[in-house]
Amino acid sequence: MITVKKADELLSKEIKDYGNVTLPFDKTSGRILAAPMMADRDIPPYHRVTMDGIAIRFEEFKKGTRLFKIVATQAAGEEPKQVVNNTDCIEIMTGCALPSTVDTVIRYEDLKIENGYAQVGDTNVVLGQNIQRKGIDKSRGEILVPEGTFITPSVIATAASVGCTDLSVKRFPTVAIISTGNELVAPQQKPLPYQIRTSNAFAIQATLQQYGMTADLIHLRDDEQIIKSSLKDCLNQYEVLIISGGVSAGKFDYVPDALQKLNVVSLFHKIAQRPGKPFWFGKSADGRLVFAFPGNPVSTFLCCVRYFIPWLRACMGAIGAKIQMAILDSDLSFAPHLQYFIPVKIETNDEAQIIAKPVTGNSSGDYIQLLHASAFMELPMDQQEFKKGDRYPIWPFNNVLL
Amino acid sequence: MITVKKADELLSKEIKDYGNVTLPFDKTSGRILAAPMMADRDIPPYHRVTMDGIAIRFEEFKKGTRLFKIVATQAAGEEPKQVVNNTDCIEIMTGCALPSTVDTVIRYEDLKIENGYAQVGDTNVVLGQNIQRKGIDKSRGEILVPEGTFITPSVIATAASVGCTDLSVKRFPTVAIISTGNELVAPQQKPLPYQIRTSNAFAIQATLQQYGMTADLIHLRDDEQIIKSSLKDCLNQYEVLIISGGVSAGKFDYVPDALQKLNVVSLFHKIAQRPGKPFWFGKSADGRLVFAFPGNPVSTFLCCVRYFIPWLRACMGAIGAKIQMAILDSDLSFAPHLQYFIPVKIETNDEAQIIAKPVTGNSSGDYIQLLHASAFMELPMDQQEFKKGDRYPIWPFNNVLL
Repeated sequence: MITVKKADELLSKEIKDYGNVTLPFDKTSGRILAAPMMADRDIPPYHRVTMDGIAIRFEEFKKGTRLFKIVATQAAGEEPKQVVNNTDCIEIMTGCALPSTVDTVIRYEDLKIENGYAQVGDTNVVLGQNIQRKGIDKSRGEILVPEGTFITPSVIATAASVGCTDLSVKRFPTVAIISTGNELVAPQQKPLPYQIRTSNAFAIQATLQQYGMTADLIHLRDDEQIIKSSLKDCLNQYEVLIISGGVSAGKFDYVPDALQKLNVVSLFHKIAQRPGKPFWFGKSADGRLVFAFPGNPVSTFLCCVRYFIPWLRACMGAIGAKIQMAILDSDLSFAPHLQYFIPVKIETNDEAQIIAKPVTGNSSGDYIQLLHASAFMELPMDQQEFKKGDRYPIWPFNNVLL
Repeated sequence: MITVKKADELLSKEIKDYGNVTLPFDKTSGRILAAPMMADRDIPPYHRVTMDGIAIRFEEFKKGTRLFKIVATQAAGEEPKQVVNNTDCIEIMTGCALPSTVDTVIRYEDLKIENGYAQVGDTNVVLGQNIQRKGIDKSRGEILVPEGTFITPSVIATAASVGCTDLSVKRFPTVAIISTGNELVAPQQKPLPYQIRTSNAFAIQATLQQYGMTADLIHLRDDEQIIKSSLKDCLNQYEVLIISGGVSAGKFDYVPDALQKLNVVSLFHKIAQRPGKPFWFGKSADGRLVFAFPGNPVSTFLCCVRYFIPWLRACMGAIGAKIQMAILDSDLSFAPHLQYFIPVKIETNDEAQIIAKPVTGNSSGDYIQLLHASAFMELPMDQQEFKKGDRYPIWPFNNVLL
């Protein structure tokens, strides 16, 4: 049995780069950018008019001129018009490229337009006003979005603006989620009185979906031969196996033995934690990884959220991930010398604090408790008493906009 | 011009129920549940064994018996075996339905098994130990997940466990995202020096995708006739139009006029806010809604995040949504009598506080600043000075697990 810290260390040694894949930019939400995104032009690419009104030469305004002759009207997207005389102006719209013969924009609100002339009212005018200077936001060739960035709507909009219609994003490993256990029937089936429907595999699949990842679902019966031959096939077909169940001390827990016979080396088996103690982690000779989680619903979910997802994010090279802290909302006692992960409901209060309300459950088989939780709180192993107001790390698992 | 508060009021009057749609349960992540989910059986559905070991009659142990004859082995998923004599036991596995003739489970760790007999070691045994009682988590017929719940991996796993393979979720309205402006070309095109690529529509589309929603993208040229006839078609085809651009004071801002001619009544035009002042909101005679946002990238994005998404969530009947507060991380001044929405980067600190770091930009055209932000902070209109440490509401827009 190893500590949580040691498990983290061993897992961190197995962080792999699964390469990149190119996707249409508008299908990359939630993925990790694999190459920096550059500005193909200055941003903005031209002196951009930011108000509807007239464009003049400031020099002329400074001289005292307030009446300007409208010699042209320029709509956004039109090639810039030009003035000839200093007392000319161009009626110009937001988004226009500023003509080179003018330098200042006065908005409609400060004008009176009549008979082809614009009369400037009593207003303060500054050279270059209502113009966003070419390149003020970014220069051509500058990096707009670094590699490793989580792709948000703003990244997608930026990709559109610079014409990056194909984006290189980190590739996910191919994953099979394998459930074991003869007591399990498919969700579509009516179970016999001593059977239940499979659900862990769907919890894992939905968790991966939150990160944009898909995985195949496979169910294996507790039969030594079936488990061995199916795991062999899976190890050929998938880069990562996530297994739920069959890793404990039971007579029909064939998984660790079958994996060892298939030359999957155990990197650890059992972590000093609750739930999820029997977690088995191994690697095949050709680098395929096997995350074999205990079959209890809360255990398997904890192992997925606490170990698999952080490992996956590290493989993707995601930048900016950080341990989140929350404030425990009630006193707790936990005597066993195990790292205790308690399901908590995360709330924020008017003081802008993150509060963790423990969700009480009956056992690690009680998956209903997870419905009321949105994170696991990680309580230190060397303590037995935890006080309301203490701060501990949390591992959130529900996809909510903070 | 109306206040933000008034805009919220007017929008709240247009909250509509767009009905329900039935989806396969494993395709509902992020949707809103439209009907309560019930337990079809007790949870657990039988007295469930939680450790691998032997099942005995406690009465016999109490009498002093420590050696039990193994008369059967029961694997998970098998019909319960039975004992005949009090000194019999069943070797039994985690997940089994407890046989009716036994009542207590002793785990392997406390046993020595030899020649078909199990010898109980020096251990404390309690009646009913290592058994999760039938129905302890939930009773048959109880509501497990109420209507209006945001569908998380735990909800999906619960649906699997109770055989709800088709889930009724709230239907999204059909939406068209319409961009306007002759300066815009498609992301695939190379713009002329006075053109830019369209990007706002993609920012909106990606934001809707975060909520599992799809929308069609339509671009309209600034032509009065085209705008009128296309908007007419869109009003027939879609329940909601989101328009970006064409709502300001410009000569070619045909949108409000065209909408009015199509009998879309303006419910408001212009909010005392920055950015996003020219926001136009209206309704057709048959209840189709039009959100017409100003075309500046930051303005359009603010309007989408601050008004459209909360309206959508309210239409879905989502429960549990709450205004989030954050702590301003630096002093700010803002003189205009407008509600100021400043892009902020949200971070959490070791004190479990939510910190908002203002992201400085050059203008509402500066969409690059949004790359560094994850929320808008809403600063009150009646203040001009905002101090580091003050708390204000935030409107987060990046999909991150808290």
